[in-house]
Amino acid sequence: MEPFFGSDNQSGVHPEILDAFVKASGGFAGAYGGDPWTEAGQAAVSKAFGGGEAFFVFNGTGGNVLALQSMVRSFEAIVCADISHIADDECGAPEKVGGFKLLTGKSNAQGKLTVEAIERYVSYRGSIHQPQPKVLSLTQPTELGAVYTVDELKTLVAFAHKNDWFVHLDGARLANAAVALGVDFRAFGPVAGIDAVTFGGTKSGFAFGEAVVMFRKEHADATRFYRKQCLQLSSKMRLVAAQFSCYLDGDRWKRIAAHSIAIAAKLEDGLKGLGFPVAVPRDANALFVKLPVAMGDALAERFHFYKWPTGDGIYRLMTSFASTENDVEIFLAAFASASR
Amino acid sequence: MEPFFGSDNQSGVHPEILDAFVKASGGFAGAYGGDPWTEAGQAAVSKAFGGGEAFFVFNGTGGNVLALQSMVRSFEAIVCADISHIADDECGAPEKVGGFKLLTGKSNAQGKLTVEAIERYVSYRGSIHQPQPKVLSLTQPTELGAVYTVDELKTLVAFAHKNDWFVHLDGARLANAAVALGVDFRAFGPVAGIDAVTFGGTKSGFAFGEAVVMFRKEHADATRFYRKQCLQLSSKMRLVAAQFSCYLDGDRWKRIAAHSIAIAAKLEDGLKGLGFPVAVPRDANALFVKLPVAMGDALAERFHFYKWPTGDGIYRLMTSFASTENDVEIFLAAFASASR
Amino acid sequence: MEPFFGSDNQSGVHPEILDAFVKASGGFAGAYGGDPWTEAGQAAVSKAFGGGEAFFVFNGTGGNVLALQSMVRSFEAIVCADISHIADDECGAPEKVGGFKLLTGKSNAQGKLTVEAIERYVSYRGSIHQPQPKVLSLTQPTELGAVYTVDELKTLVAFAHKNDWFVHLDGARLANAAVALGVDFRAFGPVAGIDAVTFGGTKSGFAFGEAVVMFRKEHADATRFYRKQCLQLSSKMRLVAAQFSCYLDGDRWKRIAAHSIAIAAKLEDGLKGLGFPVAVPRDANALFVKLPVAMGDALAERFHFYKWPTGDGIYRLMTSFASTENDVEIFLAAFASASR
Amino acid sequence: MEPFFGSDNQSGVHPEILDAFVKASGGFAGAYGGDPWTEAGQAAVSKAFGGGEAFFVFNGTGGNVLALQSMVRSFEAIVCADISHIADDECGAPEKVGGFKLLTGKSNAQGKLTVEAIERYVSYRGSIHQPQPKVLSLTQPTELGAVYTVDELKTLVAFAHKNDWFVHLDGARLANAAVALGVDFRAFGPVAGIDAVTFGGTKSGFAFGEAVVMFRKEHADATRFYRKQCLQLSSKMRLVAAQFSCYLDGDRWKRIAAHSIAIAAKLEDGLKGLGFPVAVPRDANALFVKLPVAMGDALAERFHFYKWPTGDGIYRLMTSFASTENDVEIFLAAFASASR
Repeated sequence: MEPFFGSDNQSGVHPEILDAFVKASGGFAGAYGGDPWTEAGQAAVSKAFGGGEAFFVFNGTGGNVLALQSMVRSFEAIVCADISHIADDECGAPEKVGGFKLLTGKSNAQGKLTVEAIERYVSYRGSIHQPQPKVLSLTQPTELGAVYTVDELKTLVAFAHKNDWFVHLDGARLANAAVALGVDFRAFGPVAGIDAVTFGGTKSGFAFGEAVVMFRKEHADATRFYRKQCLQLSSKMRLVAAQFSCYLDGDRWKRIAAHSIAIAAKLEDGLKGLGFPVAVPRDANALFVKLPVAMGDALAERFHFYKWPTGDGIYRLMTSFASTENDVEIFLAAFASASR
Repeated sequence: MEPFFGSDNQSGVHPEILDAFVKASGGFAGAYGGDPWTEAGQAAVSKAFGGGEAFFVFNGTGGNVLALQSMVRSFEAIVCADISHIADDECGAPEKVGGFKLLTGKSNAQGKLTVEAIERYVSYRGSIHQPQPKVLSLTQPTELGAVYTVDELKTLVAFAHKNDWFVHLDGARLANAAVALGVDFRAFGPVAGIDAVTFGGTKSGFAFGEAVVMFRKEHADATRFYRKQCLQLSSKMRLVAAQFSCYLDGDRWKRIAAHSIAIAAKLEDGLKGLGFPVAVPRDANALFVKLPVAMGDALAERFHFYKWPTGDGIYRLMTSFASTENDVEIFLAAFASASR
Repeated sequence: MEPFFGSDNQSGVHPEILDAFVKASGGFAGAYGGDPWTEAGQAAVSKAFGGGEAFFVFNGTGGNVLALQSMVRSFEAIVCADISHIADDECGAPEKVGGFKLLTGKSNAQGKLTVEAIERYVSYRGSIHQPQPKVLSLTQPTELGAVYTVDELKTLVAFAHKNDWFVHLDGARLANAAVALGVDFRAFGPVAGIDAVTFGGTKSGFAFGEAVVMFRKEHADATRFYRKQCLQLSSKMRLVAAQFSCYLDGDRWKRIAAHSIAIAAKLEDGLKGLGFPVAVPRDANALFVKLPVAMGDALAERFHFYKWPTGDGIYRLMTSFASTENDVEIFLAAFASASR
Repeated sequence: MEPFFGSDNQSGVHPEILDAFVKASGGFAGAYGGDPWTEAGQAAVSKAFGGGEAFFVFNGTGGNVLALQSMVRSFEAIVCADISHIADDECGAPEKVGGFKLLTGKSNAQGKLTVEAIERYVSYRGSIHQPQPKVLSLTQPTELGAVYTVDELKTLVAFAHKNDWFVHLDGARLANAAVALGVDFRAFGPVAGIDAVTFGGTKSGFAFGEAVVMFRKEHADATRFYRKQCLQLSSKMRLVAAQFSCYLDGDRWKRIAAHSIAIAAKLEDGLKGLGFPVAVPRDANALFVKLPVAMGDALAERFHFYKWPTGDGIYRLMTSFASTENDVEIFLAAFASASR
């Protein structure tokens, strides 16, 4: 089979995680989380982040909406990047399900928010004509694959807290950010001033499943009910939980992320060697490269990757646990042949 | 392990379905349904129902909200039983996510709706002060485990269509109804005048996954987008699809349902023999029995079944693919001992 | 002009209130409530109820949704009568705009709720499958024109507070209840344990306008923003405020209500004399009477009153500030002639 | 009294419109629009626009949400200017009440949208990850007081219709645009390809009240119910209707708008004479002028006008039917004195 380089959700299930899934799938167990796997999985997530309460959900959109919904009333707003997934790639789910408004700031060349991009929303406070900013939602890594540094996060968190906003991380690929930064998940937890995380499993080799981690009890007490109401309560929850326990066991999460990143680095090197340097500095497992359109389109079709919607000939490639060195060689050979 | 008799979602994953799940979990594939498993699974569902378009979703609440949302605008209402899952067991998800109103009719002793119970809503038509009834949603089997006969369905469908309402089936355990009636799924499809079905997988031995089947193109064209917006779009959709293909392959679905029902029948016989006849005539795999509270509570704790919230000492027991004759014997022995 | 007996909103504007409206309509003033009339009107309402913060809104549906929205998150539910306006006569506005669920209790022959009718919802607490009851909403007077006595209110308020629910009064005709009971509005304010009131103006002779009165600061702080978001922020708010100041000035509100009630009493006496006693004991300005359908329909058309939707030949008649003794005589003459 | 120059909603009620209001306020009439004033008012609006069905509502936010809600399902989106009232000044009401998404385009120096600013949304069509653009909403005049020319409108309407989008006008001050362009309201109706209009009354001298005008029957059939559900159904609707009939009678609307504009022109001339030319070319009754902050703030407080939130020392002044030449002189004298 030819490799797919479109997204890490084009991969199947990581064999070790699948094994844990299969093991948890036999016999009776309490539904809706009333089972030992869920208890263990929740504990594993909380331990990884250094606190908080974990709520397992089905997918990333559901996780984001649930986390945000738990922190705001409808007249309170979420400040986020214009190109963030919640703003631009979830078919209006936050507005539909949550009823709240997203206030967007212009992201920079790496897809990051800066204080400058969002500080104008501070003036909304108190005006009844404007929704009241209440949560700063950051995507880590960003939609352009870049990783906020610990210092960048610190600056944004301080700004948010100074204004009495909470901070949420959309972490569909959070492990990749951790490995890129050389930190563990506590760097994205309460000691870092983060209030809630959508912690991704699917893109790291799960069959399905994400965890919403709420670090404040007053939020978690609402998340409990919102999860059901927002269509995210799994009856055989043990299957999500068992995957998380496996994923967080030892350094498995690190190995998976490190592998994706190493393959991406190899891909970057190969492309550079062929005269196509990345268009956005690569931090983790996403590569953005500018290609002649005819060539790009042909390769994109064959290797199932995406033309970026900005319309300037940028294509995104992504690797996963399932990408191999051999996949890269197949791709580079096709690339070399096409670019001749 | 002692058996669980609380719900069919306390079972794990049916071994044959798990096998299909595992087979589909390897290698790359298009995300969000752009893969051959999804195509095949959709075709299998459509073939089973004799038409329609299948949309795979995560869970039953999501499936119900999605199906209903696809058929109404917010000022249009859903007519349903007072004890239906959508009205009483989904934490207000239809109201929250869909924004529409549920107009409830009093269900009878079997949990069924009758024309008499709902006909008053016909007069709402045209009045701007009342939401406009647009969909009749029936649960098959009902919350009390009873199965609408083909004639009962026919009468209700005719009533609905005469009033220009669509008909939706909440079929979390639809296979059990089919087997109980000796029909196949076409009895719940377009030839029967049904407009949409939430077709359950989870309670029939899936890891997770349901299918929303829309029989009218104008609805399906909206379901496509509402699925994403209602947080029900799976990226590794092949995993849900592969389970459906397996489930509908040959007579597997029939065998699974027939087994659950046979075990429930055995349980019924045993309880009857001990002097505890069922409180609601049993049609499929759910048993309702009245027990002395101290005894009922003790058994419920040990065998993980539920006291019914009506407060009159009724308990619900349920069997699944995973229930065995041996489970029944263990239970009956404990029961006999407790009732002595 | 022949009299209308359909509803007190078929009347125009009370001359004294109109005069205040006209006076406030000249010259410049701050918009959105930044004007002296609003300040005075809010103070007048707060004084009348013995506390709270008043938010002027456009209509009763808007006022009810705003008051309830200010007290709940979407997974929290409103307990109310099955025939209440919010449940049955607002086209699903609470569900659409607020996203929360209404849990209905069966009202008695006077349209009142009792503890027995709603106590089963107490068991919902803590279950993630059910919305969490949080507000008891009572209509005073009820949809059947009956007035909860001070003791009945006390019992229901105590039950609600014991369960940690708030209490809301839908008081579209609250003055009529006050006059019927011989109390002032403090009987419906914080000293009576009420947490929020929708206080009606329109049906008491206003051009338009109601006041949402929130007695808890934590709610009022949200109402401020929800009012705009729920489409109820008036730019020329002084016009609503001036009507409230006039209405609450001296005993004007009492005179208006007492007049409506006196005319209704005269109507009741006349109908009784003609052999048509009321079907529901009359407490204030609404009369329910059972009539032969042909006669009822003809009179209803001529005098613009309504056949009650219960389908048993009951008709509702209502009086207002604008109803006169002469109107009653015209009606009774027509009635006598029709009943011959 | 010193003049207010903050907004045309700081004015009271135009004497002739007030007179019509008062005349309609006496005697009984059918509620919720079942009265002759409403019929006449609806006819007057339809006649003015050359078609459509008029729905009277309370305020501009309500009118905008109602018009847009009538045209879209929640997965369909509204394309509008980033600084438009619906996007930036309604506390998230469209998202909360309608549940749909606003897709914003960058407005130009006059606050106008251009095809270039929005054409990227065309590519959203068919992608399930993005809401589907369905309505182009234009503000006429814009938030910066500029008036789209007939040709500019034509270009945008053609672009929208080519993409199968409807066109909505937010016309809180539509008469001012008509007078500025020398056209009547048909230039904003079906012959111009417009599909819906929010037609403002409040800012043109009404006590309150706007009309949502739907030019397509399939939309109007839904507006009927959405109006109630969206909290915008007035019981004494005759009072709104009578104001519209008066406003549209003869050239009254034109005189009111022409007066506002003439006073604004006088103000512009005066400011220019004092060395303060407008910052945005003036088309109608809004003036934007850059002032030294200390001076601007002092004058803004005294004359109740607003500092624009862009933070660059721009202030907005606005005139209304109630502004007089004498008001301008008072202001200019104060201005001259302050700028010395």
